[in-house]
Amino acid sequence: MPNQAEKINHILEALPYLIKYSGKTIVIKYGGAAMIEEDLKASFAEDIVLLKYLGINPVVVHGGGPEINQLIKSLNLNTQFVRGHRVTDEATMEVVEMVLTGKVNKQIVSLIQEKGGKTVGLSGKDGGLAIAEKYLMEFEDEKGERQSLDLGLVGKITSVNPTLIYTLQAEGFIPIISPVAVSQEGKTLNINADTMAGAIAAALSAEKLILLTDTPGILIDGKLVTGLNKQMIDGHIRSGQISGGMIPKVECCLDAIHGGVKRAHIIDGRVPHSVLIEVLTNQGIGSLIE
Amino acid sequence: MPNQAEKINHILEALPYLIKYSGKTIVIKYGGAAMIEEDLKASFAEDIVLLKYLGINPVVVHGGGPEINQLIKSLNLNTQFVRGHRVTDEATMEVVEMVLTGKVNKQIVSLIQEKGGKTVGLSGKDGGLAIAEKYLMEFEDEKGERQSLDLGLVGKITSVNPTLIYTLQAEGFIPIISPVAVSQEGKTLNINADTMAGAIAAALSAEKLILLTDTPGILIDGKLVTGLNKQMIDGHIRSGQISGGMIPKVECCLDAIHGGVKRAHIIDGRVPHSVLIEVLTNQGIGSLIE
Amino acid sequence: MPNQAEKINHILEALPYLIKYSGKTIVIKYGGAAMIEEDLKASFAEDIVLLKYLGINPVVVHGGGPEINQLIKSLNLNTQFVRGHRVTDEATMEVVEMVLTGKVNKQIVSLIQEKGGKTVGLSGKDGGLAIAEKYLMEFEDEKGERQSLDLGLVGKITSVNPTLIYTLQAEGFIPIISPVAVSQEGKTLNINADTMAGAIAAALSAEKLILLTDTPGILIDGKLVTGLNKQMIDGHIRSGQISGGMIPKVECCLDAIHGGVKRAHIIDGRVPHSVLIEVLTNQGIGSLIE
Amino acid sequence: MPNQAEKINHILEALPYLIKYSGKTIVIKYGGAAMIEEDLKASFAEDIVLLKYLGINPVVVHGGGPEINQLIKSLNLNTQFVRGHRVTDEATMEVVEMVLTGKVNKQIVSLIQEKGGKTVGLSGKDGGLAIAEKYLMEFEDEKGERQSLDLGLVGKITSVNPTLIYTLQAEGFIPIISPVAVSQEGKTLNINADTMAGAIAAALSAEKLILLTDTPGILIDGKLVTGLNKQMIDGHIRSGQISGGMIPKVECCLDAIHGGVKRAHIIDGRVPHSVLIEVLTNQGIGSLIE
Amino acid sequence: MPNQAEKINHILEALPYLIKYSGKTIVIKYGGAAMIEEDLKASFAEDIVLLKYLGINPVVVHGGGPEINQLIKSLNLNTQFVRGHRVTDEATMEVVEMVLTGKVNKQIVSLIQEKGGKTVGLSGKDGGLAIAEKYLMEFEDEKGERQSLDLGLVGKITSVNPTLIYTLQAEGFIPIISPVAVSQEGKTLNINADTMAGAIAAALSAEKLILLTDTPGILIDGKLVTGLNKQMIDGHIRSGQISGGMIPKVECCLDAIHGGVKRAHIIDGRVPHSVLIEVLTNQGIGSLIE
Amino acid sequence: MPNQAEKINHILEALPYLIKYSGKTIVIKYGGAAMIEEDLKASFAEDIVLLKYLGINPVVVHGGGPEINQLIKSLNLNTQFVRGHRVTDEATMEVVEMVLTGKVNKQIVSLIQEKGGKTVGLSGKDGGLAIAEKYLMEFEDEKGERQSLDLGLVGKITSVNPTLIYTLQAEGFIPIISPVAVSQEGKTLNINADTMAGAIAAALSAEKLILLTDTPGILIDGKLVTGLNKQMIDGHIRSGQISGGMIPKVECCLDAIHGGVKRAHIIDGRVPHSVLIEVLTNQGIGSLIE
Repeated sequence: MPNQAEKINHILEALPYLIKYSGKTIVIKYGGAAMIEEDLKASFAEDIVLLKYLGINPVVVHGGGPEINQLIKSLNLNTQFVRGHRVTDEATMEVVEMVLTGKVNKQIVSLIQEKGGKTVGLSGKDGGLAIAEKYLMEFEDEKGERQSLDLGLVGKITSVNPTLIYTLQAEGFIPIISPVAVSQEGKTLNINADTMAGAIAAALSAEKLILLTDTPGILIDGKLVTGLNKQMIDGHIRSGQISGGMIPKVECCLDAIHGGVKRAHIIDGRVPHSVLIEVLTNQGIGSLIE
Repeated sequence: MPNQAEKINHILEALPYLIKYSGKTIVIKYGGAAMIEEDLKASFAEDIVLLKYLGINPVVVHGGGPEINQLIKSLNLNTQFVRGHRVTDEATMEVVEMVLTGKVNKQIVSLIQEKGGKTVGLSGKDGGLAIAEKYLMEFEDEKGERQSLDLGLVGKITSVNPTLIYTLQAEGFIPIISPVAVSQEGKTLNINADTMAGAIAAALSAEKLILLTDTPGILIDGKLVTGLNKQMIDGHIRSGQISGGMIPKVECCLDAIHGGVKRAHIIDGRVPHSVLIEVLTNQGIGSLIE
Repeated sequence: MPNQAEKINHILEALPYLIKYSGKTIVIKYGGAAMIEEDLKASFAEDIVLLKYLGINPVVVHGGGPEINQLIKSLNLNTQFVRGHRVTDEATMEVVEMVLTGKVNKQIVSLIQEKGGKTVGLSGKDGGLAIAEKYLMEFEDEKGERQSLDLGLVGKITSVNPTLIYTLQAEGFIPIISPVAVSQEGKTLNINADTMAGAIAAALSAEKLILLTDTPGILIDGKLVTGLNKQMIDGHIRSGQISGGMIPKVECCLDAIHGGVKRAHIIDGRVPHSVLIEVLTNQGIGSLIE
Repeated sequence: MPNQAEKINHILEALPYLIKYSGKTIVIKYGGAAMIEEDLKASFAEDIVLLKYLGINPVVVHGGGPEINQLIKSLNLNTQFVRGHRVTDEATMEVVEMVLTGKVNKQIVSLIQEKGGKTVGLSGKDGGLAIAEKYLMEFEDEKGERQSLDLGLVGKITSVNPTLIYTLQAEGFIPIISPVAVSQEGKTLNINADTMAGAIAAALSAEKLILLTDTPGILIDGKLVTGLNKQMIDGHIRSGQISGGMIPKVECCLDAIHGGVKRAHIIDGRVPHSVLIEVLTNQGIGSLIE
Repeated sequence: MPNQAEKINHILEALPYLIKYSGKTIVIKYGGAAMIEEDLKASFAEDIVLLKYLGINPVVVHGGGPEINQLIKSLNLNTQFVRGHRVTDEATMEVVEMVLTGKVNKQIVSLIQEKGGKTVGLSGKDGGLAIAEKYLMEFEDEKGERQSLDLGLVGKITSVNPTLIYTLQAEGFIPIISPVAVSQEGKTLNINADTMAGAIAAALSAEKLILLTDTPGILIDGKLVTGLNKQMIDGHIRSGQISGGMIPKVECCLDAIHGGVKRAHIIDGRVPHSVLIEVLTNQGIGSLIE
Repeated sequence: MPNQAEKINHILEALPYLIKYSGKTIVIKYGGAAMIEEDLKASFAEDIVLLKYLGINPVVVHGGGPEINQLIKSLNLNTQFVRGHRVTDEATMEVVEMVLTGKVNKQIVSLIQEKGGKTVGLSGKDGGLAIAEKYLMEFEDEKGERQSLDLGLVGKITSVNPTLIYTLQAEGFIPIISPVAVSQEGKTLNINADTMAGAIAAALSAEKLILLTDTPGILIDGKLVTGLNKQMIDGHIRSGQISGGMIPKVECCLDAIHGGVKRAHIIDGRVPHSVLIEVLTNQGIGSLIE
């Protein structure tokens, strides 16, 4: 019986968050360990289903995991590298799309359905969801001059039409979205999953954008910082304390907030139920950017 | 962090029950210690609010507590007693109604509102909710002949019109109902709160009827029995193991089930959050009649 | 047959008013003789039911009549008086609420239901209808200095949330409201029924506010004045021709009009069907303030 | 003031009828003196508008009055007569339709609009409202053999599609219908206005069919009979006490009742407001067939 | 089979126009040869029905054709002429209305119904559709002074209430409107059908106004001009190249565009299916004014 | 201009079919040459878009084309063959799903979107659309005994939940469905595209099921038979005139009709616009089974 009391207290702690987020949309970028380890996969799926039953509208955008590289390898595709970046040619893009949309997406669709959710897998192509244009990576060459690098069929989102998402949400479906979009000219483009999630969150004026990562959050001097704003982030980038792969993640968060998202979170996908912990508990988890 | 994992597990344990009861109506008879002790009052109110936010529709029917007797005493009303039962005359009925509808009902309305619920207090008179007729208590006299005893303005429900409840539920309001009804002839009648709750549960085809009591549930040989059906109950009444004030409670439960309610529960209102424990945990609490 | 023609002419005289008030809300403060004498009670109830059937939305706010004093007396409550005003302490407030909400309100609910209306009794506590704060009576003391007098649990309305009223009206229910409200701190406060009616009328942007009184209307030099505006009223108050208990009534009317009510009326509740006469006939009745 | 009380009593007498007929449809055949004399026209229009404002749905079907004959005469049309009946040839039918649909119908549309109603004029051709077939008058010749007489473009209704009427009623419009229909083959046919009204009333499952005539109702031995049923009517026809032009009227009423109309009335259109008197007063007017 | 391919190509050519006009309203002035010759009548009716099935909302406003003059002649009405214009007195107006609303309108209603459309015939009187005022023709007399000429019951539209049209369109009905309106004083007024169509198109913010005429369109130097704007038209009128009966037509088009109509067309009603050719083909037909 | 007349006549020929199929669902199995040749792909996409704009609801189920084999070959998968049938093992199923759902499906989604349709790509996994079970091929062995052959991850549909399709159709989206389903145990199963189309058509009570093939239809003695029923088909199968790959197609059609589909068609996907020809012209195309 004391155990039951504790259970109920835990449920009750969630009450103010339920009230706050009821009917709101939360966009979650799903990837990393949480997409590989069985128990983390199960706990993630349970989190999404519970959020939906609690009247919150989750939207999942996923990355590709190691499966893309594996198929590229099996097919002995010759990928060209420019300045350390792989160029996505047509053959590679075809593999990327097949794996993302035809394999990984449907695995997530089934994973969450098994836990009781009604999921629908989409790519940015469906329902005109996401329009993109070719992304030219800009950098300074050795002489300090700005150059732009053509990485092939890599895109950045230029517009999102959320009608299809609203249609599905209104009937209780949870959209699971693979980060592939199409250009005005009909080219299939590979999109970074974090920025895809951010763009969709902005288009939906989401209450939260949550990026699942394989780190505890934003670490400064090796310590987790639980709350940051644009000014602080700019400073940490200049000082080099935010660096490497974390830079695009924090920039994606700042873009989403600039685009109308209330809060962005970088959380540890290696912790079971990290999404629910973030949404429903007092302490939360990871780093909040607002 | 382990604490957080536990929290989330507790929330997740509730998931199948949320799915099962989502959109369903649960009628709760509120009374006893849970209506008197401050912490129990608070935990009860939290339970009701949480159920509503979880998409379940609670309807509360309350009793009168000791406050009726207190006012009768303060007014020096001469109450007549017949065979140990107090006869409800017009003056007494007026006091009963004022206390139930004008005091206790509004205290509960405010109690749950403070926790975030949108409550509306009603009596059976409002919106033509409950029609009753005079109740004649039947008994066998010393010679073994059936007699009926006129207890005055005491009634039993003959019909319930749930339109008003549906109207309020559809807009997110929680109805709090005092057990007073009106007869076809316009007489105000005092109704037993348990049977009022049962009749309303039947009219709403409620998923559950929950009677809060000051016992752990149905005790047979001093031990809690967690599940019973009509046959078992009939046997226990014949054998005298269910007796006294528990008889009308189990009969009210059986009537409700006969009237279309899925499950009836007699639970311990002295346990904090007993309603949530019953609805959302695996073990449940108290005795289930189905 | 000539009799029938006359009947029909009378019905037809009402036509332009029906057209004008169709779908509009009329708030009526019910009190005085109209709440005591049997034939006046019956004619008032018929008026309310007819208005509803004619597509007009009546909202009734009632006072307490002599019943409060009677119960206070029966309970030998020691009421304190300050400068001639009774101070409402907790014990008194409890009696006031029980009588208003538990007795008088339900009597009116039943009275109108017997005539065919679908009524729902509310207090300002239900559905968060009315929030109030303590009212400090201001006056000038002997030295001409402004003082404020604490009358205890007496309140003035600070906000009205009309959602519950709209919900009920949309389903054909007539709200009957007792003048009790709750403060932000959870204190139950007694509200003057006229000002409660005025505040609700303003929140509903009512077409009319009608105060039933035991006078023919506003009398100046002993004669009924059928139409007044703010300027005229201010003059009459300065000149002393509007005085005593009529001052708060005209101020309540002016406040309501300031708050968006189209017309306010002070009419004679001692005339049978005075509400219908006001709403549906050419001559009207009593004094109109606009 | 006593006058006002009487007014209100008259309005109140109508209350039970308002409740009874609220939301119901009443089909009125308009013709005779009520369509010619200015004050009767005005009182008829007021009745229709009032019914609509009272939440009752009037549908008006009109006859042609003397205007058809007048135009036929002005055009010197040679009408053929067979056994005393005028044969409706194409030229005559054209005149009939122009007068009924282009003149009389629009006069009624404007008449009721001036009193505040929102009217829409229709013929049986609009919206596929009424389909008819040629009507062959049957009679026995001198030798007692059944013959059928071709009266030209005279029809009887074979089906009514009330969709258009429902569409208009739902938006608050009052349909005014001229008795012209079209056959499957596209022929325009002249329909008796009484039977058109009866067929439409049946298709709408109207609460009432009211035929305005220039008699007090059904007279037996010169005295008005206020209530009759099929058996009584059959007897009176056999005995010859119902004869001549009254026979088709009572047969039309019986057909309507057989088709699902609750009550049919033959009333005196020469009495001002006879429609309202029938619908809203205790005594009613004319003869009721049910 | 090649034939089928061609068929399908023709259907496909219409696709972009279907997309563009789906759900939009097109107002068509119907008159001239298209209202007289049997095959043109049939092809016009087919066009209207097809537009409706394609999800476009046609509204037809018709003129009177030669039938008015014929009936005036048959009735030997003495029409007065002033400065070459016939004055519409009451007797003439009555004939005009009967022919337009009672004959021509219903012929069109039936014509389109036979092709499968659900039509409802209206005049400007129905549902308060069109309010007009007397139109005084202005001209300069011999001395160069402005004079105004009273042409009797001839009107110009002052306001259009499109509620009835929306109501009918929402249920799939096609409105067929005769150019008769009523003044504030209740006078029936004859309206030029082109300007009636223009005023209704403006009130509906129609996508197109199409005037069917018995010319190929606007001819300048004997050649069809397929596109014009206000400036060009003003120039052509000043230079006299647009003259006579074409002037009011182009002015009506300019007024409609000024009032919110997207495009106005003057097309050749003598070409079968000219309406469909205008709406659904690449080349279009006639003159476009925008 | 004569060209325009012809165009319009072709559009008009389609009118009765538009009326007949308006709002109805047509399920089309897309495959063969129509999915490979550029002009056939374009004409197919135009057909689907036009049907949707015409108010008809197309649902497309596609096969895999030669692309599956190509990827299997590139990956050097060792496919086992049993009695001439390839066994679908897990590795093969993964490839099948990636190609069908991740490549072919999205190509069709984009193809139709470029023509103006709003498409959403789905597999049977999305929204719980299709549940399947393992399909055991039955055959008689050399001794004439019934044997069943396990082909691995090949399934047959056991239930279809069309909720997601209805949701998408209601918002104007066209579902494009790949023939992959999931078993109760969570196994991904490969479904024959014809039978997937048939099962979905039955679940939707579709008006038509259209199978696009690379033959003119059902050929008997080398000649196209335009209409057949179950009895005729059974005869032709027994006589061997329907044989080979045509047998599962006609059986799928018969199953669909048995399941509530009105008509099934086997048509020539090599003819441009064959779908539109079937749906919108008098002659139709291919073989009709009903």
